Amino acid sequence: MSCYISLRNPQLPGIVGLLNYRPETARPLCELAETLLRRDEGLTPLEREWIASYVSYLNNCHFCHTSHGAATCAHAHESVDMIDEIEKGPASTQISPKMKALLVIAGQVQKGGKCVTEAAIQQARAAGATDLEIHDTVLIAAAFCMYNRYVDGLHTWAPADREAYVEEGRQMAFEGYLRHF
Amino acid sequence: MSCYISLRNPQLPGIVGLLNYRPETARPLCELAETLLRRDEGLTPLEREWIASYVSYLNNCHFCHTSHGAATCAHAHESVDMIDEIEKGPASTQISPKMKALLVIAGQVQKGGKCVTEAAIQQARAAGATDLEIHDTVLIAAAFCMYNRYVDGLHTWAPADREAYVEEGRQMAFEGYLRHF
Repeated sequence: MSCYISLRNPQLPGIVGLLNYRPETARPLCELAETLLRRDEGLTPLEREWIASYVSYLNNCHFCHTSHGAATCAHAHESVDMIDEIEKGPASTQISPKMKALLVIAGQVQKGGKCVTEAAIQQARAAGATDLEIHDTVLIAAAFCMYNRYVDGLHTWAPADREAYVEEGRQMAFEGYLRHF
Repeated sequence: MSCYISLRNPQLPGIVGLLNYRPETARPLCELAETLLRRDEGLTPLEREWIASYVSYLNNCHFCHTSHGAATCAHAHESVDMIDEIEKGPASTQISPKMKALLVIAGQVQKGGKCVTEAAIQQARAAGATDLEIHDTVLIAAAFCMYNRYVDGLHTWAPADREAYVEEGRQMAFEGYLRHF
C-alpha cells in the first residue's frame, strides 16, 4: 500500500507530500533544514549534505539518502554516481580526515545519543574540528533521525532511480529549503 | 566530563544550554516543539507531551523524559509521580484505547521508520484515531528521536530528581516553547 494517511497530493514523493499535508509543521521543518544544510560557516554546504545523506543511508531511508546524496553531488558538480562514495561513510577516500572523524560521530548519533564517545569527539578535535562543527554534525545527524522516521514511518513513496533525484538535488543545493513558502 | 562542547552558559541543563549556544537552530527547534506539543487540534497538549515523554524514556534520555513528563503532569494537574505511569507506555491503565494504539505506533517509530506496521495503523484507526492524529504521533515520536540524540549526543548535564523539573514542566505546558524569544 502507499502512504498510511490520505495526502492532499499523493503524487508528491517522500517528505514533500507530508510538508504539503501539514503546513504548520512544514515551516519549522524546512527552516531547520535550511539552517543546518545551507550555511557556509564551519562545515560547507557540501559537507552538511554529505552527513545528511550518510545518516539517511544508515537509517535505510531511500528518499532522504538519495535526495540529499543528489544535493551533495550538485554541490560537488559530480554525477549521482558519487552517492556510492557517500555510502562508504568514514571509509571514503575522497574526504578530509576531519570529515572522516565527523562521520564517525554522525554514525554514533544514528545509533543513539548515548553512543557518542568522548574518544570520537577527541579524534574530531585532533583532526581540526571546532565546537561549532561538532555541534552541527551532531544536530544534522539527529535531525535526519527525525526526517527519516517521518518519511518512512508514514510509509511515503519514493522514486527508485537516482536519476529521478538530480533536479530535486540541484534545487535543494542551490535554491534551498524555503523555496515553497 | 560535562558537555562535549564549550557552552556559553554551562549551568543551563539539557537542551536549554544548546539552544542558548546556537540561536540559529534554536528558533526552528522551538517552533517545531511549540507546534507539535501545544496545539489543541486532534491530540490534546497533554497527550502530545505524554507521547514525547514516553519516546524520550525509550531513548533513555533523562532530561527530555523527565521535563516532558513534568509538562504532562502539569497539564493533568498531577504530581510528577505520574511519570511512573507514562513509563508504562501502551500498558498504562490511565489512557484511552486510542492513546494505547498511538503509543504502540510511537514505540515503533522510536525503533525506526520502517518498523511502523500497517496493523498498528489499522488498530489506531479502529480505536478512533484520525489521519491528523496518526500524522502528529509519528512526527512527535520522530522529533524526539532528534531532540534526545541532540541532548545526549553532546553529553549535556541534567538534574537527577524529578522534583527539579516541576517548574520547568509547568512553564513548558502553560507558557510554551517560544518564551525565550
